[in-house]
Amino acid sequence: MATDYKFQGWLGYSPESVKGQMKWDNFEPKKWTENDVDIKITHSGICGSDLHTLASGWGETKYPCCVGHEIVGIVVRAGKNVKGIQVGDRVGVGAQARSCLLPSCLDCSTGRENYCQSGRVDTYNAVYPDGEGNSYGGYSDYNRTDYRFVVKIPDGIPSEYAAPMLCAGVTMYAPLRNNGCGPGKTVGIVGVGGLGHFGVLFAKAMGADKVIGISRKASKRDEVLALGADKYVATDDDQDWIKENQRSIDLIISTVSSEKMPLSGYLSLLKVGGDLIQVGAPDGGNLPPVNAFTLIASRIKIGGSLIGSPGDIREMLQLAADKKIKPWVETRPLSDANQAVVDMEAGKARYRYVLVNGKHAGASKI
Amino acid sequence: MATDYKFQGWLGYSPESVKGQMKWDNFEPKKWTENDVDIKITHSGICGSDLHTLASGWGETKYPCCVGHEIVGIVVRAGKNVKGIQVGDRVGVGAQARSCLLPSCLDCSTGRENYCQSGRVDTYNAVYPDGEGNSYGGYSDYNRTDYRFVVKIPDGIPSEYAAPMLCAGVTMYAPLRNNGCGPGKTVGIVGVGGLGHFGVLFAKAMGADKVIGISRKASKRDEVLALGADKYVATDDDQDWIKENQRSIDLIISTVSSEKMPLSGYLSLLKVGGDLIQVGAPDGGNLPPVNAFTLIASRIKIGGSLIGSPGDIREMLQLAADKKIKPWVETRPLSDANQAVVDMEAGKARYRYVLVNGKHAGASKI
Repeated sequence: MATDYKFQGWLGYSPESVKGQMKWDNFEPKKWTENDVDIKITHSGICGSDLHTLASGWGETKYPCCVGHEIVGIVVRAGKNVKGIQVGDRVGVGAQARSCLLPSCLDCSTGRENYCQSGRVDTYNAVYPDGEGNSYGGYSDYNRTDYRFVVKIPDGIPSEYAAPMLCAGVTMYAPLRNNGCGPGKTVGIVGVGGLGHFGVLFAKAMGADKVIGISRKASKRDEVLALGADKYVATDDDQDWIKENQRSIDLIISTVSSEKMPLSGYLSLLKVGGDLIQVGAPDGGNLPPVNAFTLIASRIKIGGSLIGSPGDIREMLQLAADKKIKPWVETRPLSDANQAVVDMEAGKARYRYVLVNGKHAGASKI
Repeated sequence: MATDYKFQGWLGYSPESVKGQMKWDNFEPKKWTENDVDIKITHSGICGSDLHTLASGWGETKYPCCVGHEIVGIVVRAGKNVKGIQVGDRVGVGAQARSCLLPSCLDCSTGRENYCQSGRVDTYNAVYPDGEGNSYGGYSDYNRTDYRFVVKIPDGIPSEYAAPMLCAGVTMYAPLRNNGCGPGKTVGIVGVGGLGHFGVLFAKAMGADKVIGISRKASKRDEVLALGADKYVATDDDQDWIKENQRSIDLIISTVSSEKMPLSGYLSLLKVGGDLIQVGAPDGGNLPPVNAFTLIASRIKIGGSLIGSPGDIREMLQLAADKKIKPWVETRPLSDANQAVVDMEAGKARYRYVLVNGKHAGASKI
């Protein structure tokens, strides 16, 4: 089947592209297979990873590169092997486009494809095995992805809400889910921004007794409480924040990546048996020093979590539909992607930008 | 009621005491209360903490100090408030002698008295509240401890086996129990010595599918396998130990305290979702650098664990009785405690020394 549509998008050709210098151009999608789905993109969230990748911040990027891994759109073509997804469906693609999917894989066979080590392909800036080509992201008109990494968006979630959930949302949802967030628990979210605000929203939706937003500045208090947090702690501005809150939190999800983060302070907020889960990492990766006595004295743990599986995304979207979760997003036209990237880099997003493809958004069910 | 016995023991008077210079002398036990039990000591394990404390290695020790917190003996006096323990019972005392025990304490009210922050008293080198005096340990003839930190030793466990379980044993048992050790699990024990060998024994007794001993030298392989481990990994001598064992272990309990430990290597042995629990800590406390990407990429955690509660000790002793667990201990006469401490410091114990009080051991039920 020939396609009557072109794969075009905003391409970065060098690290300078992050400074508003992406160029609209054609790209060659991965080779078609009968497991694939072509998606007419209506919405694409802007994620911090996009900026890091455009700038070659995590190693040399494979230019030209089209970023964006919070993709929502309408299926326009589905391969013969595709199950559960049809032309016309409203669907999403997150940060991962492929894993090995072998029955022998301990991770793929247990619904944690996001931790598969042997066949992982990112939604952009990655190379498919077997000469199938490169992966290109959502700042574009069309996307092609294996149906096993394409999820249907439940009715009732506006596409501009669904988009940022596909990476930022599930990055927060999965560790909350995997670490017992729910009734009876007090949950802390460190860093209330694009990622962290989803933590507050989902922790509340999952029924946590109390959700505490933790960030640096007291000036953020009102907006974090408006988001639904029960309490706010400003680590730069609240004197005695450690003493006043020690051993009060069951689970902390930390989005911060500064190597100057007060990690020992965060850890001292955990109740006995509590967990702190990092979803952010400093450049180079090393956390501030971790004192074994701190871990031992309160039987606490520090861990990490990486995006979410397709199953996690489905579960999260259903919760979002059921609870009518409203993330704080600002839509920007796809045509102005360069300016949106510059504004994102400048920290202007409150809390997440979603690019809307004016040519296609009218075709969306919502 | 007056007592017809004297509290005498090996007292350290200075940091030099760790070099075989403890002196046999009288000491004044804590003031008697009706919650207390007096124990005629028959056995006392030698723990690494004893040596650290004698040497003022963890801050200035309150000399004179009588160490020993793996105490087994026979009850010779029980206060009016004491429940469940009678004169003549064979009992044990571990590393903790008191906590706040208030119903309002989140830890004491949930059976984790070992994490109580407000009223914790160590079995030796600590000061009781309300002017009740100091705590003195088990290198002695008699011990006085609150009955809520005295546990009955089940019949069938020889006293020289029970003694080292009261600190070393439960330090390993509790994190295995709290982190899902059991059928279906592969468990790694890092550092197979006085502490670690209990990890191998208990992990097997708890039904773990596979127990892997991990230590530095290949020369230790035979004894670790003889102990019951299914596999041995020598991190100094096995080339490619990381590559060959990566993502193969569900739970690691690490007893090592060297700041040069290959922590990143240990972490890479964990399966997705696995835990590494430190029960040892480097001097000063800081672990080798922890890379957030390592934690994130495999959804793993690093945590700590501190001894065990009286409930943990009871549960462990019952398992030891049921499974006829045989720790590797060498008995030494209490009268030769100084030499035993010197030998312990020299690393000669295989794997644990237990001091036997010749005057009292004949009175033991076993």
